[in-house]
Amino acid sequence: MKVKTKEGLKEYRTVWFDEEENAVKMINQPLLPHIFEIAELRNHKETSSAIKNMVVRGAGAIGATAAYGLAQGCLEYQKEDVEGFWKHFENVYETLKNTRPTAVDLVNGMNYVKKDVEKGSGVQEYQKLALKSAEKFADEDVEHCRMIGKHGSKLIEDGYKVLTHCNAGWLAFVDWGSATSPMYYAKREEKEAFVFVDETRPRLQGARLTAWELSQEGIKHVIIADNAAGYYMKKGEIDVVIVGSDRTIGRTGDVANKIGTYEKAVLAKENGIPFYVAIPMSTIDWNLESGDEIPIEERDYDEVLYAWGIDDHGDRKKVRIANRDSRAKNPAFDVTPAEYITGIITPKGIFKPDELVKLKKN
Amino acid sequence: MKVKTKEGLKEYRTVWFDEEENAVKMINQPLLPHIFEIAELRNHKETSSAIKNMVVRGAGAIGATAAYGLAQGCLEYQKEDVEGFWKHFENVYETLKNTRPTAVDLVNGMNYVKKDVEKGSGVQEYQKLALKSAEKFADEDVEHCRMIGKHGSKLIEDGYKVLTHCNAGWLAFVDWGSATSPMYYAKREEKEAFVFVDETRPRLQGARLTAWELSQEGIKHVIIADNAAGYYMKKGEIDVVIVGSDRTIGRTGDVANKIGTYEKAVLAKENGIPFYVAIPMSTIDWNLESGDEIPIEERDYDEVLYAWGIDDHGDRKKVRIANRDSRAKNPAFDVTPAEYITGIITPKGIFKPDELVKLKKN
Repeated sequence: MKVKTKEGLKEYRTVWFDEEENAVKMINQPLLPHIFEIAELRNHKETSSAIKNMVVRGAGAIGATAAYGLAQGCLEYQKEDVEGFWKHFENVYETLKNTRPTAVDLVNGMNYVKKDVEKGSGVQEYQKLALKSAEKFADEDVEHCRMIGKHGSKLIEDGYKVLTHCNAGWLAFVDWGSATSPMYYAKREEKEAFVFVDETRPRLQGARLTAWELSQEGIKHVIIADNAAGYYMKKGEIDVVIVGSDRTIGRTGDVANKIGTYEKAVLAKENGIPFYVAIPMSTIDWNLESGDEIPIEERDYDEVLYAWGIDDHGDRKKVRIANRDSRAKNPAFDVTPAEYITGIITPKGIFKPDELVKLKKN
Repeated sequence: MKVKTKEGLKEYRTVWFDEEENAVKMINQPLLPHIFEIAELRNHKETSSAIKNMVVRGAGAIGATAAYGLAQGCLEYQKEDVEGFWKHFENVYETLKNTRPTAVDLVNGMNYVKKDVEKGSGVQEYQKLALKSAEKFADEDVEHCRMIGKHGSKLIEDGYKVLTHCNAGWLAFVDWGSATSPMYYAKREEKEAFVFVDETRPRLQGARLTAWELSQEGIKHVIIADNAAGYYMKKGEIDVVIVGSDRTIGRTGDVANKIGTYEKAVLAKENGIPFYVAIPMSTIDWNLESGDEIPIEERDYDEVLYAWGIDDHGDRKKVRIANRDSRAKNPAFDVTPAEYITGIITPKGIFKPDELVKLKKN
């Protein structure tokens, strides 16, 4: 996607590999939207730290970073000893895996690379295969997201007003994003959408990241308090809602996504507004029976009791909102039952929630 | 209500009159919850500034402040000249009125005092009547709110979990509050409620003011992001929702209140949770035909693009959340149609929205 730089508009991916420097490079996301900076990670340990410290976040972007990090680790190996290579490989794999033990995409990305490397023989071939495989994994993420955009764009007519929640944007993937991809694709088809961006408390991914993305791409938008979404729905100012998902239950079409998604889905149904969820195939869960079984992570209370931003001098600051005696609760996700969802936009087309089972491989 | 001070728990009203010093005194609300300080306003011009600068906010509290400010102005008059007194009176009245031209309660409070003063003859009697009247006005506000609590407390059983939005607390009135009054009253009846406090973006009145109030009174509570309310409703963790209202349409029972109220009402209905609105009689509008006619004020965009709080050094700071190119929309209120409202708690009892017309004086 495009980013406004001093040298004009430039194309970027969220994460990529610099073969010459054997470096993983990525947009430093905690600095956004205030500073646009590329983090250069010189070895797999630096790459691991970047995942751990959330310099990169979002399922697709983490998967690609782990794939690149594993390839980077392979390329660090200086000897010709095959046994030594595989010992080193396992160390790199474990180091990357332990950064965020619950991130499924991280393991997916690495297993994709591992499978390809195993086809080779000899260290040099392993190394070549690792890098080629990581690039292929990242390219596939881009293509999946692009296809989400191609299918989802059909839902957006010229002049449509779209509501989105949180950041299921290209920053969460390698490119295009999931929920944002139909908006970007529609723009390339010369259909102009206007986007209402839920700020998405407590972490404000909408205000910080989605608004920044849309601003770079020149898509008209406004940031609203999460409280105002229902007001605009009732006023008839929203034509369609498109959000992402962290986990979708294949059997039912129930969707786990950022806290607040359920509220928007109920409000959309009440107001007769179509509610779509855009997902890559990798987030479909075929094991659980229903959304009720999804465990909901409770995050740090300080995310609610504080707000983060930059002060008048451009310095990053956090400020405490509440009094010192009050406590908070901070569920990170909620589950939206399938009955509130009009359709699920996948790289393979748009499905009704109860039709998702058609995609299950036997 | 109680406030924790260095000298222990002390009883406070939001605003009161110090006859000895001819001063209006009030809790300095913009400093809350970080600093508890009493603002002392030495003359009616200082009192006017305090209203204008929102040192005091909330319908009931503004009404009482205006009543006290008018009495204070009367007491400032040093001569015995009746004609001169009334000229001075009109000046004071206009000065106070112009602080917030759209605040209905401000004018109500002053007209209440004016009517009483007009019964007197001679400057000294005018002055005595003005102060007596202002005190009576404030006392009536307290009594109305107490009665809201007495009726509303019936809705709260021991161990109930209550959700509230924004601050319809005692800080918005002289004492007790509207939405909070049933919680305080229930506590005096030894029924323990647990309160979920919506933080209420963008101005965070829930996180800043309601949580502070509940904390002072020793009522158990947690602050949640507005996005999390639906999650807890769906989980069955909310027994009843109680909010306040800025304007209630007498003919229909439609309610205008802080942005986000409509969202909570729809979610409550969807989850079978009773949704109550607590109001003093003065906020009932008998003129409009329905809630659709209520004009919705759009406030400063910076309320969405920034957050306010204190930094690590205890200094008040604002921080910018979003990028510089993105704009916001910031409707201050929304309208909740009567169909989502279980009942309206008034000082005269609890009414179904369509029964509110019974209260209309012919």
